[in-house]
Amino acid sequence: MADKIFRVNMTDLTAKVEDVPEAWMGLGGRGLTSTVVAAEVDPTCNPLGSKNKLVFAPGLLSGTTAANSGRLSCGGKSPLTGTIKEANAGGTSAQLLARLGIKALIIEGQPKGDKWYNLHVTEDGVTINEETETLGMGNFKVVETINERLGAKTGVITIGPAGEMKMLAANISVKDPDNHIRSNGRGGLGAVMGSKKIKFISVEPTMNKVEIADPEAFKTANRTFAKALVDNPITQALAQYGTNVLVNIINEAGGLPTKNFTQGQFAGHEAISGETMHDTIVARGGKPKHNCHPGCVINCSQVYADMQGGYRTSGFEYETIWAFGADCCIDNLDQVAEADNILDDLGLDSIEIPVAFAVAMEAGVLEFGDGAEVIRILREEIGKGTPLGRIIGCGAGSVGRTYGITRVPVVKNQAIPAYDPRAIKGIGITYATSTMGADHTMGYTIATNVLGVGGSLDPLSKEGQVELSRNLQIATAAIDSTGMCLFIAFAALDDATCLPALIDLINARFGIGLVADDVTNLGKTILKTEHEFNLKAGFTNLDDRLPEFFKEEPIAPHNVVWDISDEAIDSFWDF
Amino acid sequence: MADKIFRVNMTDLTAKVEDVPEAWMGLGGRGLTSTVVAAEVDPTCNPLGSKNKLVFAPGLLSGTTAANSGRLSCGGKSPLTGTIKEANAGGTSAQLLARLGIKALIIEGQPKGDKWYNLHVTEDGVTINEETETLGMGNFKVVETINERLGAKTGVITIGPAGEMKMLAANISVKDPDNHIRSNGRGGLGAVMGSKKIKFISVEPTMNKVEIADPEAFKTANRTFAKALVDNPITQALAQYGTNVLVNIINEAGGLPTKNFTQGQFAGHEAISGETMHDTIVARGGKPKHNCHPGCVINCSQVYADMQGGYRTSGFEYETIWAFGADCCIDNLDQVAEADNILDDLGLDSIEIPVAFAVAMEAGVLEFGDGAEVIRILREEIGKGTPLGRIIGCGAGSVGRTYGITRVPVVKNQAIPAYDPRAIKGIGITYATSTMGADHTMGYTIATNVLGVGGSLDPLSKEGQVELSRNLQIATAAIDSTGMCLFIAFAALDDATCLPALIDLINARFGIGLVADDVTNLGKTILKTEHEFNLKAGFTNLDDRLPEFFKEEPIAPHNVVWDISDEAIDSFWDF
Repeated sequence: MADKIFRVNMTDLTAKVEDVPEAWMGLGGRGLTSTVVAAEVDPTCNPLGSKNKLVFAPGLLSGTTAANSGRLSCGGKSPLTGTIKEANAGGTSAQLLARLGIKALIIEGQPKGDKWYNLHVTEDGVTINEETETLGMGNFKVVETINERLGAKTGVITIGPAGEMKMLAANISVKDPDNHIRSNGRGGLGAVMGSKKIKFISVEPTMNKVEIADPEAFKTANRTFAKALVDNPITQALAQYGTNVLVNIINEAGGLPTKNFTQGQFAGHEAISGETMHDTIVARGGKPKHNCHPGCVINCSQVYADMQGGYRTSGFEYETIWAFGADCCIDNLDQVAEADNILDDLGLDSIEIPVAFAVAMEAGVLEFGDGAEVIRILREEIGKGTPLGRIIGCGAGSVGRTYGITRVPVVKNQAIPAYDPRAIKGIGITYATSTMGADHTMGYTIATNVLGVGGSLDPLSKEGQVELSRNLQIATAAIDSTGMCLFIAFAALDDATCLPALIDLINARFGIGLVADDVTNLGKTILKTEHEFNLKAGFTNLDDRLPEFFKEEPIAPHNVVWDISDEAIDSFWDF
Repeated sequence: MADKIFRVNMTDLTAKVEDVPEAWMGLGGRGLTSTVVAAEVDPTCNPLGSKNKLVFAPGLLSGTTAANSGRLSCGGKSPLTGTIKEANAGGTSAQLLARLGIKALIIEGQPKGDKWYNLHVTEDGVTINEETETLGMGNFKVVETINERLGAKTGVITIGPAGEMKMLAANISVKDPDNHIRSNGRGGLGAVMGSKKIKFISVEPTMNKVEIADPEAFKTANRTFAKALVDNPITQALAQYGTNVLVNIINEAGGLPTKNFTQGQFAGHEAISGETMHDTIVARGGKPKHNCHPGCVINCSQVYADMQGGYRTSGFEYETIWAFGADCCIDNLDQVAEADNILDDLGLDSIEIPVAFAVAMEAGVLEFGDGAEVIRILREEIGKGTPLGRIIGCGAGSVGRTYGITRVPVVKNQAIPAYDPRAIKGIGITYATSTMGADHTMGYTIATNVLGVGGSLDPLSKEGQVELSRNLQIATAAIDSTGMCLFIAFAALDDATCLPALIDLINARFGIGLVADDVTNLGKTILKTEHEFNLKAGFTNLDDRLPEFFKEEPIAPHNVVWDISDEAIDSFWDF
């Protein structure tokens, strides 16, 4: 049976099932969410108003046995950035939705009254149910409650209290295979879900299989593809130390933003490094390897245990550890893990929030390094929606504006992640030009600037950085459409067998004949669609700029400033 | 002696006196501040950073005996709106600065450390002095302290605690003839002054006189001009009831925004009307008439007394009374007066703050109508810089973003004033297109839409509103350059002797030969200079829009929505 579009209207509380328009047939994941948003959402609309839409789409390969294909894309107009937005996450829902034959779930409108709802998705459609029991609950309790109510195999897409309160850093959480939380993290899409008064979406478990046009070719390609992934040395490092392998690497490169981006190295880096984390997990009996979605062969996630060996957090990522660790100067991995766990439960972006804390520290709201106070504020202020909690819960830009701080590391109001653009210039191009505000995952130049993947390019030189970012942003837009985890990029860039195998997988799934250029063109089209939306929303090239202080304050140890010209940045869009 | 530019650099704490460039000779007030800002400030700079400048300029006629010529313009890039900004106020400083031979005082740079300063202005230049005593003081106490320190005739331009805390609704206060406070109210220029760590500017009293090229012609013109003002019926109504004469008029017109812009009439309007205010002042022994600057012949200000006949507030304006009264539903003039007095003392925009309170009421932070809680929040939260205080102190947009509210009446992040654009459409064009964010004073179409001044144009019709707003915005830009109070416009529009007399005054002052077209062209040039700055700052025509809810929610009693097309709005700039 052909895939369908499931459409829910929250204004009149109706749902329907539609055929997939011809033009959307070849799209999935980010390619589809961005196309739907660009086609159906008024770019000038209020992101928390009735005209915005929330679009979920599994990737082109989601639901199949293809390795690492279980990412769920979620798109809409971001209330944090005002741009188009896509965020993707692992968990079990992408594969369930794909197996139920759902190409995209489009949620539009907004209920008038105070009632809250849940959506239940089956292969026949969506039912809209009034929801009361889980209101105010943290994500872990929501998952537990739905498991009891509907069975443990049910897919869960939910918002925590932060999304209910429409905090601009609220994310959307997806249940993972172990009932933990994966996050469509960035851009405040949880607030959009909250604005539509949907507490959670449950997805019926299914034994359905996705139709494969050429099962043999698919199997062969998948074997090659998975081998390329597991053989790759970066992938292997990710498996051993998680993404947090990067703390020591980026610190060594002098690009680890520290103390609200005043330094490029953190004296306490050893205490929070991937190596320390790994040893701690092993010593306490946690899980050093863990997958965020079934079918992942990389296993970069882990379960971090507390001193008694109990669960403290999982999916404990470099970005979060950097932000609470180096940027807030908290050299205590247990405190950072506890903070991460609270963010998972409240449903908040674990980059935006700690970067916001560092700005609050600069404002004197609390001291740099005060992990205990961070945890108190997370629980008592953000969790309860106090004024201070809302200020921080609305992100780094919010803290900066409210306290009159000028050193606020954001682009398009979204917090800059864990790589200082002065010391690693390629990533600055990505921050500036990304269609979604500052976001390293949009074009991860760290690969080539620091890790030597896909060649090598001096991070301190201005030369070639625009081209690097452009090529990676194009490739990323395509990968984000497949349902694949972005970490396949390391193998794709360095192993000649990987990308052809990925294309073979798509061709075998749909019985088509894409070639490499088609994939590149798909990426270009997605970027241009997103960029066009932003222009129609009122953005100009003047928004593609880093904050003033990066140009004025040299950062140690390299004592460099951000010195790539505006003209060079603007040439990004020459393709 | 020719007028000079006084320039202060707060980075290296130096001051100098410069000749006035040829191109700035014919400019004063807003025309000069906007020209200086456009020429010298990077439009993309952070408004609270070292690249912004703060420019004070008396008007072309300030310092003379011309009636109503004592307004002081202050300009810079606004931290609230991100646009160019000019705000003007009465008080005694404009005339003193003009008599000291100061064409403009330009303050640039930013000190690095934590020290605060005051500036003392004499005819020889500016001295920069470290300041400690007045830090944290409210404006009334600052004025008292400077009067003691430097003598009661000293001009005072100061920021209150709000400006020190860089709240985005912080204004700049100017001492009036009775040691009360007049405000350069809108756009957060007080935060810019705070960002430069200047607590106050004192202006030396002087017996100097401004040179008049043709004293006889000046005297004759001034007689005609003053007569036109005092003979005008609107001016007379302003003298009797203050600007608050408008409560009943705008309520009757169905355009009095009530309960956060959900209704166009306020049931409690009688309790807060100009008539009630007048009777209360008379009964309690306050002053029903009062001037905000020496030389004013209108006297629309007043001193509102408390029940014991003591000072409660002065310059008690319609906008403030509307915003706390109708928009926050507080039908208690004593509470509104107390709130106004606190805003004067803290140094906050008395439009932005009450509109922000109404949004906070919609968010459930406090109840509509709860005047006592408003007063408590003003004193205990905003005055002390608590998180809630800062959220509200940063304006209506800040409250909306922090609490996820979509009904936020702002344009370019500045609160919409006391006239609902759905019911009085001309003013909506002004809100949308003003170079400074929503601001009724930029092109006061109420004159023609409601008061029958300058002709009559149906406020509910779409026809002619763009032209009306355009003509008034052009005229206003010119008037704002003369040092004249905008209330001369009523006579200028309806009394054929008024405008020629004003032009004669300028000609007699400088020995030049301007004609009416020159004045119109000055107004056009100023608007275009300001608009160009905003375009270079990243604004587009998409920013010239009213919030979504005005298009979607009809307002009683006329049950009308905002229905002027985007194309019509954009045609504003066709001149």
